[in-house]
Amino acid sequence: MATTVVRYQHEGKPAWGVVHERRIAPLSRHYASTADFINEGIDEAHASTPAQALLALDRVALLSPITGDRQFLCQGTNYASHVRESGMDPTRIGFNTLFTKAPSSLASAHDDVVRPAHVRLLDYEIELGLVMRRSLRGATTVGNGELHHWLAGVTIVNDISARDVQLPQGQFYKGKSYRTFGPAGPYLLLLSAEEWLRWPELRMRLAVNGQLRQDSYCGDMIYKPYQTLTELSALHDLDAGDLIATGTPAGCAARAPGKLALWAMKHLLSDATKWSLFIQKGLDNPAYLRPGDVITAAIRSDDGRLDLGEQRNRVVAA
Amino acid sequence: MATTVVRYQHEGKPAWGVVHERRIAPLSRHYASTADFINEGIDEAHASTPAQALLALDRVALLSPITGDRQFLCQGTNYASHVRESGMDPTRIGFNTLFTKAPSSLASAHDDVVRPAHVRLLDYEIELGLVMRRSLRGATTVGNGELHHWLAGVTIVNDISARDVQLPQGQFYKGKSYRTFGPAGPYLLLLSAEEWLRWPELRMRLAVNGQLRQDSYCGDMIYKPYQTLTELSALHDLDAGDLIATGTPAGCAARAPGKLALWAMKHLLSDATKWSLFIQKGLDNPAYLRPGDVITAAIRSDDGRLDLGEQRNRVVAA
Repeated sequence: MATTVVRYQHEGKPAWGVVHERRIAPLSRHYASTADFINEGIDEAHASTPAQALLALDRVALLSPITGDRQFLCQGTNYASHVRESGMDPTRIGFNTLFTKAPSSLASAHDDVVRPAHVRLLDYEIELGLVMRRSLRGATTVGNGELHHWLAGVTIVNDISARDVQLPQGQFYKGKSYRTFGPAGPYLLLLSAEEWLRWPELRMRLAVNGQLRQDSYCGDMIYKPYQTLTELSALHDLDAGDLIATGTPAGCAARAPGKLALWAMKHLLSDATKWSLFIQKGLDNPAYLRPGDVITAAIRSDDGRLDLGEQRNRVVAA
Repeated sequence: MATTVVRYQHEGKPAWGVVHERRIAPLSRHYASTADFINEGIDEAHASTPAQALLALDRVALLSPITGDRQFLCQGTNYASHVRESGMDPTRIGFNTLFTKAPSSLASAHDDVVRPAHVRLLDYEIELGLVMRRSLRGATTVGNGELHHWLAGVTIVNDISARDVQLPQGQFYKGKSYRTFGPAGPYLLLLSAEEWLRWPELRMRLAVNGQLRQDSYCGDMIYKPYQTLTELSALHDLDAGDLIATGTPAGCAARAPGKLALWAMKHLLSDATKWSLFIQKGLDNPAYLRPGDVITAAIRSDDGRLDLGEQRNRVVAA
């Protein structure tokens, strides 16, 4: 059965525990990082019992279960529905878009998301986060049935994006790396070998102020976890605690311009004019996040047996 | 006076030392990472004397002075000459392009650069690498006269790039992150406050098989180190040992198409056709790196007082 791990603030320092029915069973040791927990604490987490669950989950301040000392990798254009709303043809991309977010963008599932003063088009992206279990140091063919060997668990990631920085500047890194732009958690859900096979059934739902914006199954992703691990292994090293956010489905605030506008942008307009129009149009789009908005994001299987919990983040001005 | 630090393999493990006239004075302690050396070893390095230099520099295997446990940040489009050869107008960019390379792409100044089997257009980019001295955890205005406070030293970085992956895929991360795509060193040159003011005088020269390809002063960079640190501080956290590669000047193998071709690419061709033509044309360009090529890269001031050493890397097939 899946083991629900949390990291939380306890008596002034970060602690790790296992959730049983809204109560936390604290682990006996402190782990400085997600990698340390994965390397040394997983057995104790699996052995945790409800009788040890002494702490009410609602009474502690949760921390991101992913610490910012490792790689924060991201896939882009990984759901056909989001590729289409971004104005591209999903059948014509033909590659797995990879980029990174700064690890210090990580925030807890309940932290405020801070909109920097110069950012006008703030957007959300719910994503399934994969957390590495062990090192992968050379080209390796990973099968869908071997995910449990390489991956420790899953977590919710909200890939908050400043579209007016990300898109005009071409490289995604800056517009997605501001502090608090990566709420992660609340849970690191450790899956068994059998449970790993159920990842396509995980359903992502994100709402803003209670209005549902994104609602898709992870199974719709284009490059599946085993394919991405195989590709990454041939590219660079991976280690326990690395986080891979696997892309977002349709429903973001950012929308591609209509066909006529796209034609004009390609053929008539300079880049500067194009992005200035994109930003002007965005300012009239009420779907972008504004201070005071509350984002809720949950991922679970429809039968409720795999439950990654729910994020609830308020947007605030810098 | 600048202190020339090396990391090298000694009796089966990595060691740190200071170079005096082609001989190494070993430091008394082992440091697991560049951050540990910077946090705990800088004073001993500064106090090192020629009398302690017992090891011939040419007799040891050098390692990258930057360890792969920290951030590897990069600036793009940061020299007008390179922006122009890439087919863009440097006066119209208006932002500091930021992205990352995977830390495991780091290699030593003498390691072979491995061209993956599927990569056809392999390119080089000599860059000045800045190495952080301390944490920068919030928006901070850094002045040009304060570099010594925030930065420990400089090193040579060769930002090896698979152009046929990097450019068609849009996000630069993948095409620049293959293992061995980031030769760094040979030296981590620790600079005094006065020496930091001389960074614009540093001259970068890169040759392939003895033929000079890149030759520019660092002072030509568009976004200067103090501006980049100021911008990064408002974006995300920086810590001791982080590496910032500051962009490359003209002379890379990749060249923008001519004006007529550019017009056709913008107005007539699909993305797939455009990149297919780019790759076909690149295959006829002898400037791209091929197995057997030897890249030499050096950065120093013309008076020789600031000398970051010389890289010498051979290109090999996977």
